[in-house]
Amino acid sequence: MSTTSPVGPVPSVGAGSALPSALCVLGLGLIGGSLLRAAADRVPVQGWSPGEATRDAAGAAGFDVAAGLDAALRTAADTDALVVLAAPVTAFAPLLAAVDRRCPTNRITDVGSVKAPVAGQVEALAPRARYVGSHPMAGTAQSGWDAGSATLFRGAAWVTCIDADTPVENWAPVAALALAVGSRVVPAEAAAHDEAVARISHLPHLLALALARVGVSGGSLALSLAASSFADATRVADTRPELIRAMCEANRGPLTDALDDFLGILGVARGSLASTGTLVGITRDGEQARAAFQRRAAGLTAITLSGDDLPEQLLSVGASGGYITGIEQTGSGIEVQAQCPGFD
Amino acid sequence: MSTTSPVGPVPSVGAGSALPSALCVLGLGLIGGSLLRAAADRVPVQGWSPGEATRDAAGAAGFDVAAGLDAALRTAADTDALVVLAAPVTAFAPLLAAVDRRCPTNRITDVGSVKAPVAGQVEALAPRARYVGSHPMAGTAQSGWDAGSATLFRGAAWVTCIDADTPVENWAPVAALALAVGSRVVPAEAAAHDEAVARISHLPHLLALALARVGVSGGSLALSLAASSFADATRVADTRPELIRAMCEANRGPLTDALDDFLGILGVARGSLASTGTLVGITRDGEQARAAFQRRAAGLTAITLSGDDLPEQLLSVGASGGYITGIEQTGSGIEVQAQCPGFD
Repeated sequence: MSTTSPVGPVPSVGAGSALPSALCVLGLGLIGGSLLRAAADRVPVQGWSPGEATRDAAGAAGFDVAAGLDAALRTAADTDALVVLAAPVTAFAPLLAAVDRRCPTNRITDVGSVKAPVAGQVEALAPRARYVGSHPMAGTAQSGWDAGSATLFRGAAWVTCIDADTPVENWAPVAALALAVGSRVVPAEAAAHDEAVARISHLPHLLALALARVGVSGGSLALSLAASSFADATRVADTRPELIRAMCEANRGPLTDALDDFLGILGVARGSLASTGTLVGITRDGEQARAAFQRRAAGLTAITLSGDDLPEQLLSVGASGGYITGIEQTGSGIEVQAQCPGFD
Repeated sequence: MSTTSPVGPVPSVGAGSALPSALCVLGLGLIGGSLLRAAADRVPVQGWSPGEATRDAAGAAGFDVAAGLDAALRTAADTDALVVLAAPVTAFAPLLAAVDRRCPTNRITDVGSVKAPVAGQVEALAPRARYVGSHPMAGTAQSGWDAGSATLFRGAAWVTCIDADTPVENWAPVAALALAVGSRVVPAEAAAHDEAVARISHLPHLLALALARVGVSGGSLALSLAASSFADATRVADTRPELIRAMCEANRGPLTDALDDFLGILGVARGSLASTGTLVGITRDGEQARAAFQRRAAGLTAITLSGDDLPEQLLSVGASGGYITGIEQTGSGIEVQAQCPGFD
C-alpha cells in the first residue's frame, strides 16, 4: 500500500475497464430490478424473473427481458455475462443447477444477505463457475419490481467477498459493477461478513420484534404513551416475517453468537439494577460504543493498492473500516483506489 | 359516559375555566423553560432556576424570574399558583422542603419521568400540598433553557396522575395546563404510568446501549456495514448517561419486570434458533405486536365525562388508549371531553 494525501470520503467511480462485458440478472425484485436500471447505461443488461407480470413490467419499461431461464443463461454464455442471482436465497438451488447446465464457467455473483452458506451451495451445485459473493447493504420496506430505483445503491456499502485464494480477476468485475452503480465497495471474507451483519442487521431485527411484544404487553396505555424511542426501535419489525426468517435463519451460527453477546450484556445490567440499583456499567460502556459508531467514517485517507498480495490488501481495507473507490486494469495488472482510516 | 359522534383525533383545547390562576415553574431547563414559554399567553407565569445564567437568560427573554426560591414560593402562595417541579427528580427533596415551608397547601405538580416514587417523596416532605403528578412525553436530545420551545408539547402525550381518591379539582388545573400547551392529556395511576414507560421508554434506552456494544464488538468492518436498522436502533444511546441512569434507576421495579419479559422473549428465540434453526415464533408474534402499535390511534370516538365517579372514568379513558381533549367548569361541576377507542 502507498499512502497519499487525505481526501474526503466521496468515491470517485473509476470502474470502466474492469466492468463485466454484459450482465444477466436473475430475479427482478427490489434489488435485481434496481440493479437492472442502475447498470443499464454502463453495460449491456438482460434480466429474467419467474413471474410473468414482473417480466412484462420490466419489458414495458424498455429492458431486455428473457422469456425463460434457459434462454437467459444461453445469452449469458454467448456474451460472457456476469450472472447475478437476485432471487431470495431460498430459491438459489434451481438457479445454480441451471447455471451449471447452460453457462458452467461464467462469472457469477449473488446479492443475498448471508455469504458463507451461499458459497457452499455454489461449490456444490455450480463448482466450475467463477463465483464471487456480494451483498449490497441497501433496501427499503417495499419489495418487487415497482419498488426498484436506479439510485438505490448510491452511497450504500456493497460487500464483495474475497479470500487469499480468490483470483482478483474474478473479484474485479463484481466490484466494478458495484462501483458503477454508486456503492462503497467493502471487501470481506464471507465468514467475516456473516459475523458483521449478524450484529448490525440481523440482531436489530430480532430486538425490534421482541420489543414490540414487550410494549404490547403493557396494554393500550403503554402503546398510547409510546413516542419516538419506541417507534424507532421497533421500525424494522414491519419487515415481512418471511424475509426476516430467511436472512436470520440462514445465518444461524453467527446470529446465535451475537444473541449470546447481547443477552450477556443486558443480563448483567438487569442483575446490577435488581441487586444494587445501578446502571453505571451499561450506560458508560454503551455511550462509548455509540460514540465509536458515530466516529466510524472519520479520518479516511486515499490509498492505492496493487501487487501479488492484492487480496490481502483488499481484506485489510475492509477490516479496517475502509472501502474501494476505483478499479483500473493497467498494463501491469489491476490497480485499486481505496479510502482507508489513517494510522496517524 | 355518553357517546357522541366519531370525530378526528385532533384535540379541541377547551381548558379556559379550569386553568390555574398562576404558574410557578421551578427549573428552567428544556421542559421547564418550554412550559414557561408555552403557558405565558394563557396564565401569569413566574419561573426560577438555581443557575444564575439561566435566570438571566429567561429574564432577558422577557419572563418574570424570581431571584430566589423562597421569593418564588412566597409569590406562589400569594397568587395561589400551581407550582411545577421541573428540576431533575434527584433534586426534588430540597424543593419540596421549601414548598412545605413557604406555600404548604398550594397545588403542585412535577414533570419527572417516574411517578410513584415522586408521589411517595411528596407525601413525606410536603404532605399538605395538593399534589398531582404529571409527565409530558416530549423531549429532544438537547437540554437547557436555550433548547426550549413554546411548541415542544404540541401533540405529545402528557400523563396526569389520578386515582379513585384524587379530588378532581386538584387534577383539573394540571390537565388544563397540559391541554393549553397543546398536549394529549392521558390520565393514569402513578404505578400504571411507571409500568408503561418502563416498557416503551426506559427499556428501549437500555437496548440501544447494549446493541451499540454488540456492534462495536464486531470491529471496524461491522461498524462500516451498519446502516439504518443499526443507526435507528441505537439512536437514543446518545442520551447523556446521567439522564438515562436517573430515569431508569428511579424506576427499578417496573424496569426489572420489563427487562425480564424482554430477556424471556429473546432467550426463547435464541433457544429456538440454536436448537431447531427456526425463528417462526418471534417473527410471527413480533409482527402482530408491531401492527397493534401501528393501529393504536385508530377509531377514536368523542365522549363526554362527568359525575361523581369522574376519576374512574378518566382512568378508563387512559387505560383504553384514549386521551382528554377539553375540560370545562360548569354550574354542576367539571365536564371533560375525551377521545376514546370505540367499542363497535
